[in-house]
Amino acid sequence: MITVLAGGVGAARFLTGLVQVVPARHVTAVVNVADDLEVHGLHVSPDLDTVTYTLAGAIDRDRGWGLADETWHAMEGLARYGAPTWFNLGDRDLATHLQRTRRLGEGADLATVTGELAGAWEVEVRLLPVTLDPVRTRVTLPDEDGLEVGFQEYFVRRRHAVPVSGVRFDGVERARPTPGVLEAIADADRIVIAPSNPIVSIGPVVAVPGVGDAVGARRDHVVAVSPIVAGAALKGPADRLLTELGHEASVVGVARIYAPLAATLVIDEADAGLADDVAAEGVRAVVAPTIMAGPAESAALARVVLEAGEPGP
Amino acid sequence: MITVLAGGVGAARFLTGLVQVVPARHVTAVVNVADDLEVHGLHVSPDLDTVTYTLAGAIDRDRGWGLADETWHAMEGLARYGAPTWFNLGDRDLATHLQRTRRLGEGADLATVTGELAGAWEVEVRLLPVTLDPVRTRVTLPDEDGLEVGFQEYFVRRRHAVPVSGVRFDGVERARPTPGVLEAIADADRIVIAPSNPIVSIGPVVAVPGVGDAVGARRDHVVAVSPIVAGAALKGPADRLLTELGHEASVVGVARIYAPLAATLVIDEADAGLADDVAAEGVRAVVAPTIMAGPAESAALARVVLEAGEPGP
Repeated sequence: MITVLAGGVGAARFLTGLVQVVPARHVTAVVNVADDLEVHGLHVSPDLDTVTYTLAGAIDRDRGWGLADETWHAMEGLARYGAPTWFNLGDRDLATHLQRTRRLGEGADLATVTGELAGAWEVEVRLLPVTLDPVRTRVTLPDEDGLEVGFQEYFVRRRHAVPVSGVRFDGVERARPTPGVLEAIADADRIVIAPSNPIVSIGPVVAVPGVGDAVGARRDHVVAVSPIVAGAALKGPADRLLTELGHEASVVGVARIYAPLAATLVIDEADAGLADDVAAEGVRAVVAPTIMAGPAESAALARVVLEAGEPGP
Repeated sequence: MITVLAGGVGAARFLTGLVQVVPARHVTAVVNVADDLEVHGLHVSPDLDTVTYTLAGAIDRDRGWGLADETWHAMEGLARYGAPTWFNLGDRDLATHLQRTRRLGEGADLATVTGELAGAWEVEVRLLPVTLDPVRTRVTLPDEDGLEVGFQEYFVRRRHAVPVSGVRFDGVERARPTPGVLEAIADADRIVIAPSNPIVSIGPVVAVPGVGDAVGARRDHVVAVSPIVAGAALKGPADRLLTELGHEASVVGVARIYAPLAATLVIDEADAGLADDVAAEGVRAVVAPTIMAGPAESAALARVVLEAGEPGP
């Protein structure tokens, strides 16, 4: 059994590789929900949807989110009504949010609904939102007089093109792990920290009380994949966020953050020269190609992670 | 000032004629909301939307409901999730229901939201839902052991192709007229009962306590347009409903129902031979073409209604 701590795009691509190497039903993904938002009265779970759509082969790969062959007619209509349109929702995608919102309104919990949605897409990976309690990433923007905004207000509305001076996970201290999450971590043969943003994707997963400790308790069985390659994020603002929040935007900085959680870090060949510096942080470095240009590269990376084995003495 | 009691398609077509003849801002439509329903967690107001879309020139005229150039991708997605799909909602149309539902959730009332939506379509006719309180038409189906269903379960899901043994307006006895409705009736120069279904469109409008009495008090100024032509409804099940519920599916039957409310009934030329029978019900018959094949016919009918004048002694 493999358990993967997951954000959005990077995690989703890794999971598509993993299910080529092990049976999907042996995989549990514990997914970030601190990016979730309410928009047009609908509960949107971007990371859960990205993982689901990607595993279903239905993602719009160019755009990186949402469904392929999408249309935008409902958004055009909402624009007519003066509704906010910076968070774009396609017509096909809307079905997911309508169904999720209705089911939550009926009293179903997010894990149940996530399972139903994934099942409809014939996704066999078990997807667990890390918590059923409301946790929301809040981002402080120094250039706007220290205004604190919701994650998507930063990430989408401002295209993550503004400096950040702080990140916190509102509600996380009261959040409880979703039933099954701690067991999935405790019982896994291998735990993978997917190549997601360490601050805003993996951060709010391991910040849920009990989750970080559970992962740390299995440290020798935990393999992280660096989302930073040659000092830059492949996608999104991870590099800038690391620097702005006092970390180092490198595999060494990632190793330092993950050292309490993971005994092993897979770093890209481009960073082979930093393997010793990673080791100096107490984390074994495994060097491999990590850029997942397609399914073959994703599968190769999954194999590397699975074969990383336990670290030596 | 003209006030029109309105259902859906027939009323909407009449209103498009009326606004060619009088300034739209002089017209108030008091619209049925007992056909409203919750579907996919959204508040749908079919008659309000049909009137709005028709006045905006945006209705799908062939289909008779919803917006032109529509796509159905969200519904395809909902079908994937096993959600009920018998009440079809187009992608463009969804924007209306999303916006309405969100605004109602924010505490805005249906009249306010209706005004906002109509304003966005540049509709200048004042649209008033007859009540802000929940009133829902319930239909008894004798062929299903007397099962009582919501109106759209009869009208859409069963394509109104089943017998009906009873109709009631759940909640109507506690409903209050929307602020402005009684004034719009009391102050109007002319009150028009649009060619809508007398039982399930006009019925729940005049059943709201105070509304029927207010219309009856202005009886001499009220002109109804028969939705029955030559014994048949132009659209929908009005003829069958009249018969099944003990009325007569003819202009005479319509006159009998409307006699307490309207001094004048416009009947189609096809029914000219029944003018005396209408008069025998205490209702003056005005004979004119009533079939609104297009804007010109709608305008002509509006002129007939406005020129009908007050009944003689």
